[in-house]
Amino acid sequence: MSSVFGQLFRVSTWGESHGGGVGVVVDGCPPRVPLTVGDIQVELDRRRPGQSKIVTPRNEADQCEILSGVFQGQTLGTPISIMVRNQDARPEAYTEMQTMFRPSHADFTYQGKYGIRDWAGGGRASARETIGRVAAAAVARQYFKRALPKLEVVAYVKQVHKLVADVDPAKVSARAIDRNIVRWPDADTVPRVIRLIEQARADGDSVGGIIECVIRHAPVGLGEPVFDRMEADLGKAMLSLPASKGFEIGSGFACATLKGSEHNDEFYLQKGRVRTRTNRSGGVQGGITNGEDIVFRVAFKPVATLSRAQKTVTVSGNSATLKARGRHDPCVLPRAVPVVEAMAHLVLVDHFLRQKAIS
Amino acid sequence: MSSVFGQLFRVSTWGESHGGGVGVVVDGCPPRVPLTVGDIQVELDRRRPGQSKIVTPRNEADQCEILSGVFQGQTLGTPISIMVRNQDARPEAYTEMQTMFRPSHADFTYQGKYGIRDWAGGGRASARETIGRVAAAAVARQYFKRALPKLEVVAYVKQVHKLVADVDPAKVSARAIDRNIVRWPDADTVPRVIRLIEQARADGDSVGGIIECVIRHAPVGLGEPVFDRMEADLGKAMLSLPASKGFEIGSGFACATLKGSEHNDEFYLQKGRVRTRTNRSGGVQGGITNGEDIVFRVAFKPVATLSRAQKTVTVSGNSATLKARGRHDPCVLPRAVPVVEAMAHLVLVDHFLRQKAIS
Amino acid sequence: MSSVFGQLFRVSTWGESHGGGVGVVVDGCPPRVPLTVGDIQVELDRRRPGQSKIVTPRNEADQCEILSGVFQGQTLGTPISIMVRNQDARPEAYTEMQTMFRPSHADFTYQGKYGIRDWAGGGRASARETIGRVAAAAVARQYFKRALPKLEVVAYVKQVHKLVADVDPAKVSARAIDRNIVRWPDADTVPRVIRLIEQARADGDSVGGIIECVIRHAPVGLGEPVFDRMEADLGKAMLSLPASKGFEIGSGFACATLKGSEHNDEFYLQKGRVRTRTNRSGGVQGGITNGEDIVFRVAFKPVATLSRAQKTVTVSGNSATLKARGRHDPCVLPRAVPVVEAMAHLVLVDHFLRQKAIS
Amino acid sequence: MSSVFGQLFRVSTWGESHGGGVGVVVDGCPPRVPLTVGDIQVELDRRRPGQSKIVTPRNEADQCEILSGVFQGQTLGTPISIMVRNQDARPEAYTEMQTMFRPSHADFTYQGKYGIRDWAGGGRASARETIGRVAAAAVARQYFKRALPKLEVVAYVKQVHKLVADVDPAKVSARAIDRNIVRWPDADTVPRVIRLIEQARADGDSVGGIIECVIRHAPVGLGEPVFDRMEADLGKAMLSLPASKGFEIGSGFACATLKGSEHNDEFYLQKGRVRTRTNRSGGVQGGITNGEDIVFRVAFKPVATLSRAQKTVTVSGNSATLKARGRHDPCVLPRAVPVVEAMAHLVLVDHFLRQKAIS
Repeated sequence: MSSVFGQLFRVSTWGESHGGGVGVVVDGCPPRVPLTVGDIQVELDRRRPGQSKIVTPRNEADQCEILSGVFQGQTLGTPISIMVRNQDARPEAYTEMQTMFRPSHADFTYQGKYGIRDWAGGGRASARETIGRVAAAAVARQYFKRALPKLEVVAYVKQVHKLVADVDPAKVSARAIDRNIVRWPDADTVPRVIRLIEQARADGDSVGGIIECVIRHAPVGLGEPVFDRMEADLGKAMLSLPASKGFEIGSGFACATLKGSEHNDEFYLQKGRVRTRTNRSGGVQGGITNGEDIVFRVAFKPVATLSRAQKTVTVSGNSATLKARGRHDPCVLPRAVPVVEAMAHLVLVDHFLRQKAIS
Repeated sequence: MSSVFGQLFRVSTWGESHGGGVGVVVDGCPPRVPLTVGDIQVELDRRRPGQSKIVTPRNEADQCEILSGVFQGQTLGTPISIMVRNQDARPEAYTEMQTMFRPSHADFTYQGKYGIRDWAGGGRASARETIGRVAAAAVARQYFKRALPKLEVVAYVKQVHKLVADVDPAKVSARAIDRNIVRWPDADTVPRVIRLIEQARADGDSVGGIIECVIRHAPVGLGEPVFDRMEADLGKAMLSLPASKGFEIGSGFACATLKGSEHNDEFYLQKGRVRTRTNRSGGVQGGITNGEDIVFRVAFKPVATLSRAQKTVTVSGNSATLKARGRHDPCVLPRAVPVVEAMAHLVLVDHFLRQKAIS
Repeated sequence: MSSVFGQLFRVSTWGESHGGGVGVVVDGCPPRVPLTVGDIQVELDRRRPGQSKIVTPRNEADQCEILSGVFQGQTLGTPISIMVRNQDARPEAYTEMQTMFRPSHADFTYQGKYGIRDWAGGGRASARETIGRVAAAAVARQYFKRALPKLEVVAYVKQVHKLVADVDPAKVSARAIDRNIVRWPDADTVPRVIRLIEQARADGDSVGGIIECVIRHAPVGLGEPVFDRMEADLGKAMLSLPASKGFEIGSGFACATLKGSEHNDEFYLQKGRVRTRTNRSGGVQGGITNGEDIVFRVAFKPVATLSRAQKTVTVSGNSATLKARGRHDPCVLPRAVPVVEAMAHLVLVDHFLRQKAIS
Repeated sequence: MSSVFGQLFRVSTWGESHGGGVGVVVDGCPPRVPLTVGDIQVELDRRRPGQSKIVTPRNEADQCEILSGVFQGQTLGTPISIMVRNQDARPEAYTEMQTMFRPSHADFTYQGKYGIRDWAGGGRASARETIGRVAAAAVARQYFKRALPKLEVVAYVKQVHKLVADVDPAKVSARAIDRNIVRWPDADTVPRVIRLIEQARADGDSVGGIIECVIRHAPVGLGEPVFDRMEADLGKAMLSLPASKGFEIGSGFACATLKGSEHNDEFYLQKGRVRTRTNRSGGVQGGITNGEDIVFRVAFKPVATLSRAQKTVTVSGNSATLKARGRHDPCVLPRAVPVVEAMAHLVLVDHFLRQKAIS
């Protein structure tokens, strides 16, 4: 039951990497939201494989189909079922995984948990699973177009390996991000970051990094004490993404080295509206949005699948050497950007509906 | 409904800082777990105010009472209601909060969300709310004594301001942690860290820091794909704590600067058991425990309540200067250690029961 | 986790009959609802023991205390904890239950499920548990006073043993119901129904019956396809009450013998509003309220505790004869009326908030 | 979010009658359960239209496809997505519904709730939605084959209009039920009940009835106090079925007319096992199974769609006369039998897993 996310805008994802397909059922979407296949496809296209030279060459169009919940171009209020068939499934490329546990992959833990695993391409543990999340979030985006037309969710790659982008979260635009294949907000260093990723692939290696996300124009009052704080739910959402190892909001881990007198965000009045002069809180205080930009970062480890030889063990308990043959990304971050945005939308829409219920 | 945590071991906390009391209802605890008031009190004493010279002087014995769910020293399988009355409530110390929003506190956001707030001592946003979590976790601890007798959850203060403890997560013991009032694992620097906190208080200021937690002997297989990954649920649990700004597991944010060939944890066999040579995964792969130590860190910002003057605005929309009078901690971390342990227990027990259900 | 009810207006009850007390935590109540102890007490008084000569003489004032979630007479939006201490607990009256399973009670099944049970007065299985439900519903009533001021929920005893009240659900008033100790809507037969219950007690026996409930002025659109239909949630709510054996809505079981042409409720227009000429649907069509009166009935079995000798078995596996000594009601229905109303409120408030979220 | 059922064995259904298809995602099924398309198809065939002369002639093979969660013939522990495409959709047969509210259908209430509705064939309110339930329950059946091999769930038509089957719940067999097209357990009256249904169709009318279900060899201890009692969850499950108007367990509504001394089920010992001599409790005491047969009944109203003229109103607020053209069943009960069994399985499997978690 762990593939269900959200209290009111409830998302159930399903699917294995090399099974029949992947998909999602969205239950709880308000009625009369304009929704077409194109609205979803545009977001799926942003995360699909094969979109550029720096991502996995797996050839999947990821064409989605809406099976229910939409009538004459509008949501019905009933469950919206969205499906993407797997096309370029090549389980034969993964036969070694049948007998070996790939280091830092989920092969061993799935086997240990369930006593069975779909060894082809990671099965359920594949990042292909995030298609369902992106599709569901595309529905949330459509909802917000009317409910919160000024809302903006912009994620971008903030760091790859040791290269850090020079970016101002308050100003970066969604359009600028999608202008390059890394989704890197610092135009000056785009060639460098691309070379860095290409080099990792050439080395049979991979690189990690950090994605930053800014949410603008979220209303005051989203998030709930005490367990379902905005940062807690954003954190859970992001840490549920494959390869994520850390989450921080506002000042994040840097808060540790500050004193209260340095860290506190003073209030002031701007045309009658209560604002903060600084935003170390990252737009959230006491778990509830304060109307400032929500800014958070997510750390992604380097992709575990490598083309170079690694030591491991077999299912039957022998030492072994593994050299992966399956297609994979040398750096997960460019394709993770739309997924981070997707999870941010799912958290926002759920809290927005929850707040409506008590308002 | 956001004060409910857990799927099977379901915890509902309640209470404001200066209201009638604080408490918790634990629903779903297995029957026949030995449980006394003393089992809970010992944990509450670790987080109670007034326990040392470096914490708030608020004088609360935090004596708990078990109101239901226990019969002749054993749990019944029915809801366990635990209550702590508030004793040293002094709402009069907070009258300024009635009219002003304290910077980086939840005053403004609660007001914005609910159109009302209990301004005395932070109300529901007070860290006093964590009493219910600690009490619930004490129940979980009792359950694990039989169900997983080797399980160990050890948290400690890893960093205060810029002072970092020299500690090996693999070796640090619970006993050593509670030997000093900061819960600082590095005996050599205990005096320094105490001085650092005392100085902050003397300055009318506060300091932040980092808590690290290690979980030993968790079985393979806890955590669930795809949303309820162990790190996602731990992350949510920790980010739901007052003043937390970041969470990372294993290599955490440092993973960004590593290559896959550096980051991957190679498998090997140790007496027939699959082990990893390194533990950058932090005990979790694909969201599921792999039997290695689970190691994570939580960043806590410096306490927002300061004895020095700060600029802010009033409820009625005027600029103002605030100087707090209420009692508070200059550094939240020493008392947050048992709370971090508590949340870790709540996550573990819930996933342990979930795994039992499908095994 | 089975003592939690509701999705948005979430109620967690706790307590055993002869433990420290009984209570409830309400999480999700909207803020700024006027609420006093008196608002709750008036409903608790309607279900308390000792209120008349035909109910159990157990002497409990059932005085409630609000421990959290209310500030200066208004709800805060945070969890509302309400507690009633047990006063007249006499576990010694139940020592025989320690060794014997009372027929048609929960002694045997609790023992079988949990391997332990609180044998004093039924423990958690006691109808005393419903105090938490009534208290929570009193909060919902306060909410509806502003949100749906015309809403009326009126329950009454429709049948005791073979005596059936002559009553028109469309006209019966709450005031009339509470005018007699049975909560019997048919003034002419009040003496008869009282005698009937008194005779059962004199015989050391008990009687069952049927409670009918009518909900007026519920808006169109409450209830959700497909699992959380209004009748499904009402049914679950009522069947979760101790001693209930059946639930029906509108035409109920009598629908079986009708033809579609006889059963269908024709629509017509009344001042622009769509109405039905008949109400065999009981105010619900396709699981959603249609604006007509919601009318349902709940069957309650005769109380299982008898003062006369019954054959049973002991915990240790011997045949035995049991003659109950504890205090009990000869007929549960008069005190069940406010509990039926309470559960109806809990279902309504939850669906009302759910509908607000998507509107 | 109301199309989700179950706590641990979580079922999300989706689909409209004349949309792309209908289906279900099952999350929480234990791993390593043998499962094939055939296991599901056999149950879908029992509820599919066109299976006999007394049901709707809509021509749907209802061929299902398993899209995820199964690998090499076994469940993976991950979500199982099952889909049935709609084939014989003829929305044009429903154009009148676009403008008129069919009496005692969900047209008006969906419109009132959502401000939009799929008027073709009832959309989400169509009984076609139950395909997802039956498919999910087929998975549960497979699980129980190993986990509880003696478990039997047998439902049958107990009454159609005024004709009542002579049947002993303790003895009736699943095989006997499926021997005739009505699923009528009383061989002597099969021709009469068939004639009765055929006559209703010939008259352009419909008939209601009662389905009885017996569950044998459920273990002691399923069901949970206080809200998730076995009868409450069975009741909710059954009352969530289209056209159901009542639910009763054991003695049901007849309990009202019995005295406690007549109603109580005395305990006795049978080869060391605690049994009851009678079963008025219907296998459940205090909400928990006692090991006796669970026996319950569900009342179904006559199908609302009639071929004869009925008065109603239009969406735009005019009086109108409606004569349905769509294909429909004159009596829903024969096809509801497998659906009742399905919901019983879903309740049982969820409670079985919940009990495992705390055992």
